[in-house]
Amino acid sequence: MSKMKNTIDPAVNYLLPLAKKAGIETVWDRFAAMKPQCGFGELGVCCRICWKGPCRIDPFGNGPQRGVCGADANTIVARNLARMIAGGAASHSDHGRHIALTLLEVGEGHAPAYRIKDEQKLRSIAEKLNLAPADKDIRQVAKEVALASLEDYSRQNYSIPCNWTKSTMTAERVDKLLDLGIMPHNIDAVIAEIMARTHVGCDADAANILLGGLKGALADYNGMCLSTELSDVLFGTPEPVVTTANLGVLKEDAVNIAVHGHNPLLSEIVCDVALKMNEEAKKAGAKEGINIVGICCTGNEVMMRRGIPLATNYLSQEMAIITGAVDAMVVDVQCIMPAITGVAECFHTEIITTMPVNKITGATHIEFREDSAIDSARKIVELAIDAFKRRDRRKVNIPDYKQTAIAGFSAEAIMAALSKIDAKDPLKPLIDNIINGNIQGIALFAGCNNPRTTHDNNFMTIAKELAKNNVLILATGCGAGTFAKNGLMTQEATEAYAGDSLKAVLTTIGKAAGLNGPLPLVLHMGSCVDNSRAVNVAVTIANKLGVDLDKLPLVASAPEFMSEKAVAIGTWAVALGLPTHIGIVPQIMGSSVVVEFLTEKAKDLLGGYFIVETDPKQAAAKLVAAIKERRKGLGI
Amino acid sequence: MSKMKNTIDPAVNYLLPLAKKAGIETVWDRFAAMKPQCGFGELGVCCRICWKGPCRIDPFGNGPQRGVCGADANTIVARNLARMIAGGAASHSDHGRHIALTLLEVGEGHAPAYRIKDEQKLRSIAEKLNLAPADKDIRQVAKEVALASLEDYSRQNYSIPCNWTKSTMTAERVDKLLDLGIMPHNIDAVIAEIMARTHVGCDADAANILLGGLKGALADYNGMCLSTELSDVLFGTPEPVVTTANLGVLKEDAVNIAVHGHNPLLSEIVCDVALKMNEEAKKAGAKEGINIVGICCTGNEVMMRRGIPLATNYLSQEMAIITGAVDAMVVDVQCIMPAITGVAECFHTEIITTMPVNKITGATHIEFREDSAIDSARKIVELAIDAFKRRDRRKVNIPDYKQTAIAGFSAEAIMAALSKIDAKDPLKPLIDNIINGNIQGIALFAGCNNPRTTHDNNFMTIAKELAKNNVLILATGCGAGTFAKNGLMTQEATEAYAGDSLKAVLTTIGKAAGLNGPLPLVLHMGSCVDNSRAVNVAVTIANKLGVDLDKLPLVASAPEFMSEKAVAIGTWAVALGLPTHIGIVPQIMGSSVVVEFLTEKAKDLLGGYFIVETDPKQAAAKLVAAIKERRKGLGI
Repeated sequence: MSKMKNTIDPAVNYLLPLAKKAGIETVWDRFAAMKPQCGFGELGVCCRICWKGPCRIDPFGNGPQRGVCGADANTIVARNLARMIAGGAASHSDHGRHIALTLLEVGEGHAPAYRIKDEQKLRSIAEKLNLAPADKDIRQVAKEVALASLEDYSRQNYSIPCNWTKSTMTAERVDKLLDLGIMPHNIDAVIAEIMARTHVGCDADAANILLGGLKGALADYNGMCLSTELSDVLFGTPEPVVTTANLGVLKEDAVNIAVHGHNPLLSEIVCDVALKMNEEAKKAGAKEGINIVGICCTGNEVMMRRGIPLATNYLSQEMAIITGAVDAMVVDVQCIMPAITGVAECFHTEIITTMPVNKITGATHIEFREDSAIDSARKIVELAIDAFKRRDRRKVNIPDYKQTAIAGFSAEAIMAALSKIDAKDPLKPLIDNIINGNIQGIALFAGCNNPRTTHDNNFMTIAKELAKNNVLILATGCGAGTFAKNGLMTQEATEAYAGDSLKAVLTTIGKAAGLNGPLPLVLHMGSCVDNSRAVNVAVTIANKLGVDLDKLPLVASAPEFMSEKAVAIGTWAVALGLPTHIGIVPQIMGSSVVVEFLTEKAKDLLGGYFIVETDPKQAAAKLVAAIKERRKGLGI
Repeated sequence: MSKMKNTIDPAVNYLLPLAKKAGIETVWDRFAAMKPQCGFGELGVCCRICWKGPCRIDPFGNGPQRGVCGADANTIVARNLARMIAGGAASHSDHGRHIALTLLEVGEGHAPAYRIKDEQKLRSIAEKLNLAPADKDIRQVAKEVALASLEDYSRQNYSIPCNWTKSTMTAERVDKLLDLGIMPHNIDAVIAEIMARTHVGCDADAANILLGGLKGALADYNGMCLSTELSDVLFGTPEPVVTTANLGVLKEDAVNIAVHGHNPLLSEIVCDVALKMNEEAKKAGAKEGINIVGICCTGNEVMMRRGIPLATNYLSQEMAIITGAVDAMVVDVQCIMPAITGVAECFHTEIITTMPVNKITGATHIEFREDSAIDSARKIVELAIDAFKRRDRRKVNIPDYKQTAIAGFSAEAIMAALSKIDAKDPLKPLIDNIINGNIQGIALFAGCNNPRTTHDNNFMTIAKELAKNNVLILATGCGAGTFAKNGLMTQEATEAYAGDSLKAVLTTIGKAAGLNGPLPLVLHMGSCVDNSRAVNVAVTIANKLGVDLDKLPLVASAPEFMSEKAVAIGTWAVALGLPTHIGIVPQIMGSSVVVEFLTEKAKDLLGGYFIVETDPKQAAAKLVAAIKERRKGLGI
């Protein structure tokens, strides 16, 4: 058996031998050293919820079949999964709360670094939330929208659904979620409920726990939905923008600042401030001034709103430092490998943490607060310029790989492009082409990378297969990073990989939108918190067709996922009715009840279900089959 | 090396051979079968937070020192611990929320099964919360207190402390918690924050994570404090009551209903209804009618408020069923072994779950709602009577072991007893005796049982040692269960085990309170959620002495703990300034930073710290030493 490749990213493949030579440990080294990984953990049958344990169920049936308290494999697996969803929901939602609180500050006239950039979007959100914004001052609208969003974190009445979930779904889906008792009423309370019901000696009915997990996943949706929409209000709704991606975006003669993490509250201000400090960078010897690049979802945020180049995605974050050209890596929350401080020690790179609840031993901490955001951003840029002065030019190895990437396809941007064809009924050209089969279906790619599979490979393989089968492709998060780095967010990719009918549609829309050619093969919808943008599009189509989401030829795929956030996203995709592919074996296989629930029973209850398939070609075939089944259901 | 005994409980020792003979598996069998337990888990160095893992740090330094993401042992251990605290806080606080919501219903004139039983307490709580109750209707006061409590679950302003923590601490402690940034503002939000900051790629600074954990533990305190106080409002503030404990409380000729779990909202109504259904039980052939007994903390709740006998505590819950005499076991939330349905299959016992978020596969589920509480309770009792008819008398083995137990020493009851000596200044006799050394200090026993140590033995051994050293003993939870079952909640125990000066004080107070003899050796303060009662007493003493809690000769001990709730309680005891003993090795030993923080650094920051000691005699010596150190600090 040949050894699995680490990555198909050419920039990473260029740098890995250099890292090895320099004795720098990377995520792939640590993954190799960790093998064999614990089989009990991989099956989900290890319970560490109380200190009578750890308990492990013997999957072969020879050893213990119950933990010390009597919990069986089904209960243990379900509890572990539900807690992962709680972790994911908490992460997205804390991010969302941060944005909502900042919007409230702006509405109240505080937080001078921020302002309402998209008033029209704010008013349209207020309409959706039934806040009658018509004659109100925009700051008042901001306040009311922020407070309605914060209600979703504070409501104590279990029978009132969360504002955002209720107002962004089809009516039929709202009813279904209410019927099943999985409509969230309060994000935080639902997270606490999951933690409580999975405490020792509580819920010991796997299906019941999974329903709790589904509710948690919908709380995750609610948090990310408000996060996305309110970010657009504060920082602008993305529009298509042409930029570049992969580590070749770093510049030898610039102060390179990598913004990394997730929350635009930080990165937007760093960008604002850095633009004004170009001269200081030049004085320090950086001919090209300051060069900001993005990593992970912060990368997506600033790429889609500012056209800032994307350096790389999750799994290759250490590689950015290994180029020797990153002067500061500024991080906020989520998916920041603690390893980066160790890698940075081999270079001059300043690792700067900014959030009080997310520090890293060995990093420089500059606390970021909304009310003094500009000062903090200035300090960060100053540290980067200082670090540039210490840069050892002999250690600089910027790989000569970058790709054009057209980013910024928000739901609004897609509608704007479509309206160039039919201004009165923008959805019509899209729906007509779905019905006539020119577009067979839509696939949303999301989720992380994972060293359990070749970096970027699952995304690329499946996307090309789907495109060939005339499936329209949307992408967010580290999946979007993969496509940007590897050239699928280009018009050339459409020419090269789209099936004939898809190509024709993308070309018609692209030309109408003034692109002088087709839309890119993969439409960039933003960061992982932006998956709600795809839901937005799907709900619009479903309402237009008068069907629920589980009837649409719409699928999701997280072919390289690893994080709790991705587990939560995948689970709400199922709850919304989507066939949802995952390309990593989920750590639930120790429970037949849980596996059956998520891959089969969920289909009866919700229309959506998980498809587990690690082979990317097979995965593509299964996704195409799911789309065809949906088309058949619609009689198209 | 001789085999460790399973238990010192004579009733359990009587039943275990019978269980073995009948082929019934118990917690001790499962514990034995689970050995050897996973060493990585036991050290806390196993990380299953994302699906790149499981990752395990090699404690010997030969294998991996970092997880795939780069997290080291310190980060992994701290994250695991913080998440346990979140689980504990969620459990106590969801229970508290349930009580607060019910009080709100009562205030609004709904929930007819409930009423305000202790108006005076409600008004005094309202005073404490600055709600100016003087001229208000009692239902209005109930509403306002409920809403002020629910604010602690919904406040979005991070700078406003939780009402209950702020109003129940010394002023100095409040300042300290604020200074350290660990004062909770919102229980649910703090739980979500812990889940978010421990997501992959977030907080990677062990000390910072532990501060987050301390905040979570204080959120736990807040939730349990309001839970206890509002339960007293609805169900009455406990007063001393003489009852019995251990499995001998089951009756051969009665319909035996065991209420098990934690929340008095259920058990109180079951008791109310059952009392009225005695005749129906007699008609079914039960000469003695209905006999309700308690298990775990529900047992404590109904014992202290109604004098209902306590059958047993956590680890021996299966034994109740093995007597063959329990007709129904009615459970709500927490610490209910999923194993009980399997044991019940060998008998006629009906296992009845009642909470929508706490089901058990194989149990009968009767959903319990506050607005139809009486109907549900009736159905439950009917099921029990039906089951009684099916009881196989040949299988009945009620151990002939029960002990007198004097329960119900709420803070108010203690003050009432003391006021019989000095009506104007009730605390004076207590404080005088602490200062003159007749009482050397006060120890609070709390927490669960754990098969890692001989059931009940640590509690009993340490308590006897402390009593000999003239330490006043308070107890809650399964510790209280141990002392009740094993005869330490009696006047005879005071005569037998108290040091001379302690005996004299207990006798003076007991006689003044009309007990015709001393107070019992161990004062029963209630269920595990009632640990805040001890804080109440301690804060009153501290305020009287004009010192903070970390100056008092006050210690806590959880010598047999296992649950996340206990981890949370222990951690807030440290945060409040108490030397806190644990008699089970905590699963944090893989991180020197975490161990040092909790056993040493915490002392500098907060005054409190953990003492880990598995040998009960040694533990007693260390607790006495900690008390002496505190006395020295006070110059007494």
